[in-house]
Amino acid sequence: MKKVEQFEEIFIYGRQPVLDVLRRSPRRVKRILVREGVQTSFMKDMEALAKKAHLKVQTGTENELERLVGGVNHQGVVALIASGTQIFSVWKDTVKLHKKPAILLFQDIQDPHNVGAMIRTAVAVGVEAILLPRFNQAPLDGAVYKTSAGMVDRIPVVEIGNINETLRKLKEIGFWIVGIDEEGKQSMWEEDFDMPICFVIGSEGEGMPEKTRELCDFLVKIPMENDVPSLNASVSAAIVMYEWKRRRATQVKS
Amino acid sequence: MKKVEQFEEIFIYGRQPVLDVLRRSPRRVKRILVREGVQTSFMKDMEALAKKAHLKVQTGTENELERLVGGVNHQGVVALIASGTQIFSVWKDTVKLHKKPAILLFQDIQDPHNVGAMIRTAVAVGVEAILLPRFNQAPLDGAVYKTSAGMVDRIPVVEIGNINETLRKLKEIGFWIVGIDEEGKQSMWEEDFDMPICFVIGSEGEGMPEKTRELCDFLVKIPMENDVPSLNASVSAAIVMYEWKRRRATQVKS
Repeated sequence: MKKVEQFEEIFIYGRQPVLDVLRRSPRRVKRILVREGVQTSFMKDMEALAKKAHLKVQTGTENELERLVGGVNHQGVVALIASGTQIFSVWKDTVKLHKKPAILLFQDIQDPHNVGAMIRTAVAVGVEAILLPRFNQAPLDGAVYKTSAGMVDRIPVVEIGNINETLRKLKEIGFWIVGIDEEGKQSMWEEDFDMPICFVIGSEGEGMPEKTRELCDFLVKIPMENDVPSLNASVSAAIVMYEWKRRRATQVKS
Repeated sequence: MKKVEQFEEIFIYGRQPVLDVLRRSPRRVKRILVREGVQTSFMKDMEALAKKAHLKVQTGTENELERLVGGVNHQGVVALIASGTQIFSVWKDTVKLHKKPAILLFQDIQDPHNVGAMIRTAVAVGVEAILLPRFNQAPLDGAVYKTSAGMVDRIPVVEIGNINETLRKLKEIGFWIVGIDEEGKQSMWEEDFDMPICFVIGSEGEGMPEKTRELCDFLVKIPMENDVPSLNASVSAAIVMYEWKRRRATQVKS
């Protein structure tokens, strides 16, 4: 059988993120570590779920927890989980193009909070998949799990290598490549987005590399007043995704 | 003369934020402290601007800088500035209601990154003012200045006391109060927003207190798929603000 998904073990932290994974995919949880002395209703919920999954909840000192996840707000709980990503060559043969899906490709997004917030919005909007470059890109880690509010597991995340090569392959199978870029000629309000679309979300600050820009079928910009040069990356992505969703809702109705 | 603005001295940090204030309102800068040994083209720009403003750039050790702003990414530069907010009773007499402006009221937003990102988007959208509660609300500080990408100074920030009392006064002068709330009956796409509006942005997690909710003329929700319960606060605010802007653009055209 063909390998569809690949797994990597990562540490996640925080009460809600750990509970979410335990509830939704208990088999992926390898280990749970709780700070000594944490006794709350949360602990009871977690222990019940862990028991179901035949997992023992271990306890550790603050230092032991910190050593695993660094100086983050872990709320006294850390878990080792298998984080899965799909393989591009396999995923691409499963896409239902006639449904005119939208997918999101991250390009050099370094802030895990932006990655998490974008994944959360993508799930809310009904985006089909996230394309995540293996290099020069914040990976799926504990911070992403936390900011995504548990949404990482609700959308296929597809690992890709070379961005431009991936864009070429997407075009071959029928995707339109749409870059979000302040230098875009068209406002997002002028587009009907009535096609299979891969939105390319460029890095904050740097913007999109010239070669990637050339591969875009079109660039859309977000109208802005007061000479504001740009918005936060996760905010830009959300605004465009919701404009896509609004158009989609109207198209389905008519 | 009536006092229009009140000032408070705060420390801001980071190269771009300090440069921005020096460029736009040099008189508000009281003190600049740079880490010993920082020598870049940035320093030259800053020293030229400081000289114009008759300010001396002081140097300090890493420890001295840290003591002023805490463990943040200050990039070797900290400044003490006068941060101004307007007084509600004065500001409200200056509002041009016939232009059907939109204003934003923050309610218990604790994360300064959300506050900064919302201010940045508000300026891009052409929102008229930000209403900032004095209590239970992240204040304008260095983190807000940094995430707002220098936009805090480009929009009137009006300090308010009791939120519900403020909403009553806004209604008296002709504002419609619109809460953004998952429990809203109407989708934001069903609203034409053709009136003076105060958007109430509730806290993440907690949502809007019952009394505030009752004061809203209506509650709008952001359509969401896949049972996503909510979005990041700054993302929600941005999506609704841009829907307001889109409607506004169409109304002006027609």
